[in-house]
Amino acid sequence: MTIPSQVRLIDVGPRDGLQNEKSPVPAEVKIELVHRLQAAGLQEIEVTSYVSPKWVPQMADNHAVMQGVQRQSGVRYSVLTPNLKGFEAALLDKPDEIVVFGSASEAFSQKNINCSIAESIERFAPVVEAALAAGIAVRGAMSCTVGCPYEGEIAPERVAYLAGLLKGIGVQRVDVADTIGVGTPYKVQWAIEATLQHYALDDVSGHFHDTYGQALANTLAALELGVWNFQTSVAGLGGCPYAKGATGNVATEDVVYMLQGMGIDTGIDLDRLIDAGVFISDFLGRKPNSRAATALLNKRAG
Amino acid sequence: MTIPSQVRLIDVGPRDGLQNEKSPVPAEVKIELVHRLQAAGLQEIEVTSYVSPKWVPQMADNHAVMQGVQRQSGVRYSVLTPNLKGFEAALLDKPDEIVVFGSASEAFSQKNINCSIAESIERFAPVVEAALAAGIAVRGAMSCTVGCPYEGEIAPERVAYLAGLLKGIGVQRVDVADTIGVGTPYKVQWAIEATLQHYALDDVSGHFHDTYGQALANTLAALELGVWNFQTSVAGLGGCPYAKGATGNVATEDVVYMLQGMGIDTGIDLDRLIDAGVFISDFLGRKPNSRAATALLNKRAG
Repeated sequence: MTIPSQVRLIDVGPRDGLQNEKSPVPAEVKIELVHRLQAAGLQEIEVTSYVSPKWVPQMADNHAVMQGVQRQSGVRYSVLTPNLKGFEAALLDKPDEIVVFGSASEAFSQKNINCSIAESIERFAPVVEAALAAGIAVRGAMSCTVGCPYEGEIAPERVAYLAGLLKGIGVQRVDVADTIGVGTPYKVQWAIEATLQHYALDDVSGHFHDTYGQALANTLAALELGVWNFQTSVAGLGGCPYAKGATGNVATEDVVYMLQGMGIDTGIDLDRLIDAGVFISDFLGRKPNSRAATALLNKRAG
Repeated sequence: MTIPSQVRLIDVGPRDGLQNEKSPVPAEVKIELVHRLQAAGLQEIEVTSYVSPKWVPQMADNHAVMQGVQRQSGVRYSVLTPNLKGFEAALLDKPDEIVVFGSASEAFSQKNINCSIAESIERFAPVVEAALAAGIAVRGAMSCTVGCPYEGEIAPERVAYLAGLLKGIGVQRVDVADTIGVGTPYKVQWAIEATLQHYALDDVSGHFHDTYGQALANTLAALELGVWNFQTSVAGLGGCPYAKGATGNVATEDVVYMLQGMGIDTGIDLDRLIDAGVFISDFLGRKPNSRAATALLNKRAG
């Protein structure tokens, strides 16, 4: 397998990133972030979620954000919908894609959404059906595909099981997420290979956390399997609740730097991307959590 | 080429790491660091340098450090010697290996040591000759093999040229260093392949800086060429003078975490290594600059 010549990044910063922020981020700031991301060349952006504001108050402004974004043709705007009620709310805002989710870890599923993996899939089935009937694409986020904070290592068979269940209810493509960042190159490849039992290469994306500093090595390992879709987060937005002080999502800037250096086309302007990361980081009162952004900003400063 | 099943790490923290520290580190602390590194299983440690204290005051205690280390059999202790005077001073302390250096960038050579690449090699020739005559091994550190802060990208031909010159004066093995951390997987592989024109695989080590967050991906790319020797720095000691605030040497802990996760034997106990990193970081009044150490320390703390 040769490494793909083109890669598509899905920036999850506005949703997966900002949902972990302690301080509230106004809708206008989120909208501006989305605008800056699309101006930088991002073709897919995970914008918000339609979860009960009781659980995720940070996303209570989902309608305002989705309505405020000036959409650009060629860009896919996705939103997280945990249930039919959330999907119905989302439908009013016409997302291009909805995201449902499942865990490869039974213990994580129980702790996180209070039901078994199989039950979670059953609950999502009508959501997926409704989305497809409405002509909306459906992506499945598979969490804990390498390790789980409760169970430890997750066997590839568990990933294949989850991927099979998602395929069974009509989910069109899936993310292989290393939610706690414990993955290393082979383990990540095994999780991807397990997913490929049910999904075509074009329908599998990698979502790696940089908690242990492994995300770029894992991205390279995934590229070597031909994976060409990845989820990343501008400025590394999004901490990992299971390792305080540690980083969560890999920074989009770091991934773009690597891909550009390898001559792989992403369609992204790294300078404008860095500016988008600085914009949101300034608002949050910190520096971008990206080594490439830090180095390039230092270079700019001279 | 299959990925090696065994990797040897050369911890450069005590020398390359600490020489960039603003505040002086007492010899006793350096000695304790070396002891902790060898106790953690490091088989090669770059201990100090014999450079004029006018230029590098941090290494003025070279004799005290080398004399104070209780050597362990099976561990190689190396020291940097920039000239014959330095070598003669080093000789009294019986290092297992001396390190000479050269830059793949003509501009960097001029700015850093005030002479051309060819002239620097001529100056090193008698040092190498004397070391080999004394039964001391010789390693050559090749800097700027991917990029240079003055020249930008460095062509692989320049790396091959430098490697050939070092081979010509009897240097037994070489480090392929990405001194400013701008390298990405293919570029690093090209620099290594250029080096392999003159050196056998067993005599080539990778030395990657994490300034742009690329070091582990580059390590993986080097492993894929069969490289099994790497220079790393405990706790990520050693900043990069050309990008203030950014990181320099990749943290030994991050590399060990990846290799262990891949089932590659390093002989290193990660917990004890993390303790060594905490020891020196505590002394320096900061946290280890290692994502794996940070995550594992958070996990320990519960």
